[in-house]
Amino acid sequence: MSLLVTGSIGIDTVITPHGQADEVLGGSAVYFSFAARHYTPVRLVAVVGEDFPPAFRDVLASAGIDLAGLETRAGSKTFRWTGKYTEDMNNRDTLAVELNVLAETGAKVPPAYADTQYVFLANTHPAQQLQLRSAVPDARLVVCDTMDLWIETARDDLMRTFAAVDGVIINDGEARQLTGRQNLIAAGEDILKMGPRFAIIKKGEHGCMLVTPQSVTSMPAWPTKDVKDPTGAGDSFAGGVLGYLATQEKHDDAALRRSLVHGTVAASFTIEDFSLRRVRNLEKKEIDDRVDKLIHMLRIE
Amino acid sequence: MSLLVTGSIGIDTVITPHGQADEVLGGSAVYFSFAARHYTPVRLVAVVGEDFPPAFRDVLASAGIDLAGLETRAGSKTFRWTGKYTEDMNNRDTLAVELNVLAETGAKVPPAYADTQYVFLANTHPAQQLQLRSAVPDARLVVCDTMDLWIETARDDLMRTFAAVDGVIINDGEARQLTGRQNLIAAGEDILKMGPRFAIIKKGEHGCMLVTPQSVTSMPAWPTKDVKDPTGAGDSFAGGVLGYLATQEKHDDAALRRSLVHGTVAASFTIEDFSLRRVRNLEKKEIDDRVDKLIHMLRIE
Repeated sequence: MSLLVTGSIGIDTVITPHGQADEVLGGSAVYFSFAARHYTPVRLVAVVGEDFPPAFRDVLASAGIDLAGLETRAGSKTFRWTGKYTEDMNNRDTLAVELNVLAETGAKVPPAYADTQYVFLANTHPAQQLQLRSAVPDARLVVCDTMDLWIETARDDLMRTFAAVDGVIINDGEARQLTGRQNLIAAGEDILKMGPRFAIIKKGEHGCMLVTPQSVTSMPAWPTKDVKDPTGAGDSFAGGVLGYLATQEKHDDAALRRSLVHGTVAASFTIEDFSLRRVRNLEKKEIDDRVDKLIHMLRIE
Repeated sequence: MSLLVTGSIGIDTVITPHGQADEVLGGSAVYFSFAARHYTPVRLVAVVGEDFPPAFRDVLASAGIDLAGLETRAGSKTFRWTGKYTEDMNNRDTLAVELNVLAETGAKVPPAYADTQYVFLANTHPAQQLQLRSAVPDARLVVCDTMDLWIETARDDLMRTFAAVDGVIINDGEARQLTGRQNLIAAGEDILKMGPRFAIIKKGEHGCMLVTPQSVTSMPAWPTKDVKDPTGAGDSFAGGVLGYLATQEKHDDAALRRSLVHGTVAASFTIEDFSLRRVRNLEKKEIDDRVDKLIHMLRIE
């Protein structure tokens, strides 16, 4: 089934205790696409500037990602971000950020994509998310992310977006900020009252939690000994979740629970190296193998 | 099979965002015993002062805990602790502590307990743990805990204790401090080099991790919406783990993995109310029911 992602494409510089990567391909839509592409064709909707390196475009194209929705805007520059992780890798400081094209008019969904069945609205202004959502009126499943900035500054817009999606995938800090609830189950339940029928809360190295009207599921992260760079883990997670769901006829609790495994595995590969180094040539067989191992680890006989 | 626990008995005053409990029964050996008693007879080895309330002794006795190893020392006072939890309940400040009898000569294992098969050495000075361990020479399985103070001040003694036990159950902060490793898998592997054949690392609300020479298992905590008081969660966890293992002929990876479920469930009940309020009248059926639900939550079909 067709899966569309709207989000950022960036040129990242990342510093971690394990090294540094300069001016590498990044952004939410990129990490999402590299995880989801193993499950279903991915349509990428994003905007870059005219400085976007052709080599980066080739990386996306050669991965089979549909770039008909990738706008290269003349006179604009690509989003750039420089971040440094703390020793425990659980926090990062933004050292420099140039919004560039992200501060301009947002991406447009090409008319040919109006028939898209599955949609992930990665983090951007919620009014923009809502506009993008209206461009895919027949979608079977629409899921969105958000961030602290919009929770603080654009809450009304965010509530309209939440009312128009099937599910949300956000991190623990955002869930707490959004609901004022310290407890994540309570936070998830409050999110369901805002419209979505499921909430997936990401907890970084501590795994994730799925809250639906029927059930709560906690899942640990895949045990990873050598985390090189956590950048993109959350978007890769979303890519694994949505990619898997796009292969499923039903999106009930059982399917959502299975999707957590695919999200967890997708994130686990991304963090093993900087940027897309680990996932760029990742094979589906490697994913399937780790999915089986994670399910086995969780199966107590 | 017989299960012996050595550890503290205290009179606790606990303040959390949900309320306060004054001068209630607490201590590592108490929480451990109340979790383990559902699986096997528990022998408690500890010392209290002559101020120890008869009502507290009755609580222990009426729970079926064998108190032949509980010494009431004339002229001494019982350990007392006052703690206050932060808003997120993940940290606590000690407001007052009176070591009292814990600063004196430690507990002795009665000769009649020398045949004990299963032993948990809760946190105390490692030299004292080693002495207690030598009093149960035929034990099939000996597991210990420790704390930051001994890691810092009595490392040589601690290494001798670790070399003399089958497993350790410690928390994430302790594992990191002990090994200098940020990553918990790496920390667990380093602990195995110190002697134990398994390391269980507790992560509070984020669950636990089991590291053995053959495998790594991560498990989330039971999703709990209303945490009233986290005091005793770690000792209850250990009680569930050891209690379950005492019912098992083999202590291989499969049994250890199953024991994590029992530890997780034991902790989940303890935190639902202050002190022993929730677990004092807990029935085995409630435990079995939650064990089944946790296994089911983790089972991805």
